[in-house]
Amino acid sequence: MFITFEGIDGVGKSTQLNLLESYFKERGFQVVKTLEPGGTELGQEIRHLLLHRKGEVSPRAEALLYAADRAHHVATRIRPALKEGKVVLADRYFDSSVAYQGAARDLDVEEVKNISLWAVDGLIPDLTILLDLDASLAVERRSKTGAEPDRLEREKVDFFERARAEYLKRSTEERFLVVDATLEIDEIQAVIRERLASMGIV
Amino acid sequence: MFITFEGIDGVGKSTQLNLLESYFKERGFQVVKTLEPGGTELGQEIRHLLLHRKGEVSPRAEALLYAADRAHHVATRIRPALKEGKVVLADRYFDSSVAYQGAARDLDVEEVKNISLWAVDGLIPDLTILLDLDASLAVERRSKTGAEPDRLEREKVDFFERARAEYLKRSTEERFLVVDATLEIDEIQAVIRERLASMGIV
Repeated sequence: MFITFEGIDGVGKSTQLNLLESYFKERGFQVVKTLEPGGTELGQEIRHLLLHRKGEVSPRAEALLYAADRAHHVATRIRPALKEGKVVLADRYFDSSVAYQGAARDLDVEEVKNISLWAVDGLIPDLTILLDLDASLAVERRSKTGAEPDRLEREKVDFFERARAEYLKRSTEERFLVVDATLEIDEIQAVIRERLASMGIV
Repeated sequence: MFITFEGIDGVGKSTQLNLLESYFKERGFQVVKTLEPGGTELGQEIRHLLLHRKGEVSPRAEALLYAADRAHHVATRIRPALKEGKVVLADRYFDSSVAYQGAARDLDVEEVKNISLWAVDGLIPDLTILLDLDASLAVERRSKTGAEPDRLEREKVDFFERARAEYLKRSTEERFLVVDATLEIDEIQAVIRERLASMGIV
């Protein structure tokens, strides 16, 4: 079971992911909680280049660095965990690249998607939870946390608007569950658990 | 004018590149001498991940890191130099990825090529000089230098044999000049200069 959490920065992905992790664990599942970029040791170094290093990263290099992180993540961590029957919960996966490195950066979204699919050798999530929120609200929420924004978080609202629009456009695929992120935390979690129940998983 | 030098490790690419740099400079050209991976600041950090970091790099991640380095290299260094009318001499370019990350690592060579072409937004060299040498001779030459081998140079002879075979297979494209690397240094340089003369360049 491979579940990914998607949405623009500030929608509350990690809160929901942590709640879902507890839910699975309480039911006796072995859970691997991970994130992109940076789900492996090599990935942590790529994450640093992408988000915390000073200096420019050109758009295609950015997309390819995310894809490299993802390739290593899937090959060395996600696929082995799935093979062992574990539940994998990932904070971001290739839909993030399509939305951010594709649509928001103005690269061809299909090309960016194809590179990511090559990176992961075709591994598609069983369920993708998209937390949807207006971009200006998300930016506001994030700024309230007081955390230092990384290189991508420093982008302007219209960057996140383009990413959000692309997420919504893609969310017609069956694997998506779109949840209104203005709902309360426990309401969102309830919607997610309902979907898992309807899939016959928990 | 964009000229790339290709061939397995140990064939003498950098020697020939330096001689050609002098030749162009003596004739009043502005020359940018560069290399992959690591032709930019970001690229130097990617080079470290690829060649000098401890720990595994899965094959697709490796191919994508090379492509990321290349994307940034072309966008921020090679294309600007070509626009200013400079001659760019590069020690390795995308044919290296096709030979090493594709053929030698057993990934699909056409897929690896297409990712590199996307990375560089279609920039093809005007001339690619392939220094050709038997893989075991190349390994022997390299070991004589006494230099500490990097992660790729530590591969066995058959890895370089597969890379060499792929180079030769691709060298039927018109932009290639294949030179026998068992010739003397000045003989090889003469063959290269002859080709440039026949192209009406110098």
